[in-house]
Amino acid sequence: MKTNYLTLQETADRLMSADRILLLAHQYPDGDAIGSCVGLALALQSLGKQARVMCNDVIPDKYSYMTDTLRPDEFEPGFICAVDVADPKLLGPAMQGFAERVDLCIDHHGTNVAYAKETLLDADCAAAAMLIFRLLPVMGVKLTAPIAQCLYTAMATDTGCFKYGNTSAETHRMAADCIDCGIPYEEINRSMFDIKSRARLELERRALQDIRFYYHNRCAVMTITNQMVKESGAGENDLEGLPPLPRQIEGVWAGVTLREKADGSFKISLRTGRHANAADICKVLGGGGHAAAAGCTIALPLNEAIEKIVAVIGEVTPRIRD
Amino acid sequence: MKTNYLTLQETADRLMSADRILLLAHQYPDGDAIGSCVGLALALQSLGKQARVMCNDVIPDKYSYMTDTLRPDEFEPGFICAVDVADPKLLGPAMQGFAERVDLCIDHHGTNVAYAKETLLDADCAAAAMLIFRLLPVMGVKLTAPIAQCLYTAMATDTGCFKYGNTSAETHRMAADCIDCGIPYEEINRSMFDIKSRARLELERRALQDIRFYYHNRCAVMTITNQMVKESGAGENDLEGLPPLPRQIEGVWAGVTLREKADGSFKISLRTGRHANAADICKVLGGGGHAAAAGCTIALPLNEAIEKIVAVIGEVTPRIRD
Repeated sequence: MKTNYLTLQETADRLMSADRILLLAHQYPDGDAIGSCVGLALALQSLGKQARVMCNDVIPDKYSYMTDTLRPDEFEPGFICAVDVADPKLLGPAMQGFAERVDLCIDHHGTNVAYAKETLLDADCAAAAMLIFRLLPVMGVKLTAPIAQCLYTAMATDTGCFKYGNTSAETHRMAADCIDCGIPYEEINRSMFDIKSRARLELERRALQDIRFYYHNRCAVMTITNQMVKESGAGENDLEGLPPLPRQIEGVWAGVTLREKADGSFKISLRTGRHANAADICKVLGGGGHAAAAGCTIALPLNEAIEKIVAVIGEVTPRIRD
Repeated sequence: MKTNYLTLQETADRLMSADRILLLAHQYPDGDAIGSCVGLALALQSLGKQARVMCNDVIPDKYSYMTDTLRPDEFEPGFICAVDVADPKLLGPAMQGFAERVDLCIDHHGTNVAYAKETLLDADCAAAAMLIFRLLPVMGVKLTAPIAQCLYTAMATDTGCFKYGNTSAETHRMAADCIDCGIPYEEINRSMFDIKSRARLELERRALQDIRFYYHNRCAVMTITNQMVKESGAGENDLEGLPPLPRQIEGVWAGVTLREKADGSFKISLRTGRHANAADICKVLGGGGHAAAAGCTIALPLNEAIEKIVAVIGEVTPRIRD
């Protein structure tokens, strides 16, 4: 399947001439998914269009400060636009009916499978929200506080609050413009990055206790089992933001987090630095993502799942064994 | 003692007409102390002046990427400038000889005691480095990569990597200009914020295990004793960045960290949100700092020290008891 890659102006033209625009977020939506979709929906509504956001999952309460600013439009879609969705599989089961009808995809994943009729892609953007930010002036939309808090949330999410190497000077300048709109960025960041429930702290403590090391301690593997989640009293909201932890350990090139799913398989999150490529590694196992952060699923018992991902890391990154 | 408050232009004039400039950092130097001092020293050296940085303590190795860029000037000081030093006591014992001879103080602490002959103060700046950044064009100094990595490190340090409420649009725009110079910000941030030794992880795990709660869990108190440090195998470098942890717990207004000092007294670090003022609380105990982050020392046994700080928090912030 081929897509037609668009410029920023062409993308704006498509959106400007569309109406009843359905914006699709990926399943397990994070701050970039929601911020980009809601930010774009607000922009489209400000142009007098009908626009709504749909997602396979219920959007977590912590994001309601964004979704609550949206007018609740209901309509038969006239135009379908996926934002931050690299592969139609990621739309999730409930949204598969739209998978082959996506008119436009706005994305920042180098691994985008080009499934939409037309695509705006820039893999150098830290967040899909940066593409939405660039679109605003082209569509003649003013950056307002409700839009700004969406785009800020999205950029902060995908850059680890401007910490990671994907942050660019442009990201900072966009964040500055968002702050100039008077958004409550301190509360947003505290809610996104700092606040932890006591159950979450307990879960972290257990997970860190049992971390396993491979390849001269350059690979660290952390496991979150359903039993650990249950025993710590953690809820679904307490499980976000765990994948960066293993790579925070000194000397670790590849930080792996295995999260047991309901069916007993493991969702793998891989974080790497310049010594290893997470997307390349996860691709071998049928997954994908970015060079520094990628994921896949392994349907094997725990120890075999760990052996598998560790082995693939070693195959794709031979230097890690030296 | 009265100081003469200067404008940016007057401050630049003083520095431009001075030579053999000794820059003083505060004791226990952090990223802002070192980044601001070294950044200004590099700027002054680029103007053909002699400049050096002195500090009560040995500057930690992790900051050598900044200090190594400085030409090692040796001279009898012709002009003494303290940067990011709110009180001459904070210069530390080895620097007290300079305490009454400070010609200029460049600072961003609202609690600055006006000890220098002249002072450039802006308490709205997240970091002293923002004042240095503003001074550069006034002094006709170009922002180069070596200066930019100092100022970026300093701003990132004092804003929790652009996360806290003291971050302004100006901070982000300055960070953008620094990134445009090609600085290795990913490595800087990883070293400043992410990397933890296994000993540090173990210390965190122990500290979090014994955290105490007061005032309907709105006050959380974490203690780091010398014994815990010893048992976890942590070194001095592993002790930075602990004070924010207690306030990261859901619902906490005031997060207290007590760090046992060699003499058995406790260094108190207090972090608060908009519901409490850390500087006001620490002032009662002879300390100081910012509204959201302040400190003091209590020379009492552990349990009494905790009772003391918790009581003062309640006195200064009556609503926390409700």
